[in-house]
Amino acid sequence: MTNRPPILDNLIQLLTQLPGLGPKSAERIVFALLHQSKEQVAQLTQTLNQLQDSIIKCNICQTFAETNPCPICADQKRNRSVICVVSRPQDITVLEKTGDYQGVYFVLGGVIDPLEGITAERLNIKSLIDRLQQQKIFEIILALNPDLPGETTMLYLTKLLRQFKGLKITRLARGLPVGSDLEYADEVTLSNALKGRREI
Amino acid sequence: MTNRPPILDNLIQLLTQLPGLGPKSAERIVFALLHQSKEQVAQLTQTLNQLQDSIIKCNICQTFAETNPCPICADQKRNRSVICVVSRPQDITVLEKTGDYQGVYFVLGGVIDPLEGITAERLNIKSLIDRLQQQKIFEIILALNPDLPGETTMLYLTKLLRQFKGLKITRLARGLPVGSDLEYADEVTLSNALKGRREI
Repeated sequence: MTNRPPILDNLIQLLTQLPGLGPKSAERIVFALLHQSKEQVAQLTQTLNQLQDSIIKCNICQTFAETNPCPICADQKRNRSVICVVSRPQDITVLEKTGDYQGVYFVLGGVIDPLEGITAERLNIKSLIDRLQQQKIFEIILALNPDLPGETTMLYLTKLLRQFKGLKITRLARGLPVGSDLEYADEVTLSNALKGRREI
Repeated sequence: MTNRPPILDNLIQLLTQLPGLGPKSAERIVFALLHQSKEQVAQLTQTLNQLQDSIIKCNICQTFAETNPCPICADQKRNRSVICVVSRPQDITVLEKTGDYQGVYFVLGGVIDPLEGITAERLNIKSLIDRLQQQKIFEIILALNPDLPGETTMLYLTKLLRQFKGLKITRLARGLPVGSDLEYADEVTLSNALKGRREI
């Protein structure tokens, strides 16, 4: 029991259900909200209310968007024969920021992770296979995280996608991140960087 | 420019105005909200809407509460001749959790911090002085953070409170925190722990 007014405890409890927010950070946010103007709080609640109503899933790539198909899938200038498979919608944002990718995307909706109870059946894999069957795709780029669940999923998908003859399956390069120091690189990263070395 | 739907950018921008939330953590929260049920989001927005309407300031101790005076100031069992001065309302929660304090509180609303443009005039000092003039107070406990702004404010308040003859002015003990290691204690903490040593 705390001596806080119940509504504060309520709000703190609701906020701690969101990722990255513990009781302390939720408390800081609640007290910051108390110091905000009524208009600021109203703007926040209005936007929150609109959120789920205005956001839908793109039927083609499964990302969140305000339109279906999403702006990228609807863009005639994108190369639709190259599909970049990502785990979550927010990964599209990062890849788009590079400005180097002209293909389209597909959101898996997670990665295979038995510890979290996420099996291949819970991912959007069927919808990806359907898309490959209906359309001539030249290349699939597997852009999942280079960690255990990501690698497992990429292995699983690679085996599954082998059925499509002539389909090029690629993955993002593994190596040293920009600005890193050889001295502090782990052996696996360094070994990957060596294997993937390129002529200059 | 991002490829995200504008409403997501909007909400992310609103969330980053809250303490502890950067663009990345705000993005994670927004995508988590998209995965929540409509009911969960509605509950959150309703609580947010009620927040500022149901919370008022206690006229006596200046804390946030649902009633005025707040439950602590209204509690007849508390010792009203001892006032613990804290910087923010959330400090009361932590002190109440100890279960060791039976006096009442006073919220300064910050600490003197010239770098942040917070001068003594912007704190609730006048209201504290009024309370001391109207009522017989036996002890004032200055429970501010032992950092530069906190120490400055405690020094300032101590000088100001000297005018009340017979008033005992105390501060929280400085020393080693529980579970700490002498080897890693800084010199100032250790020096304070030595000066404040107690017979056992």
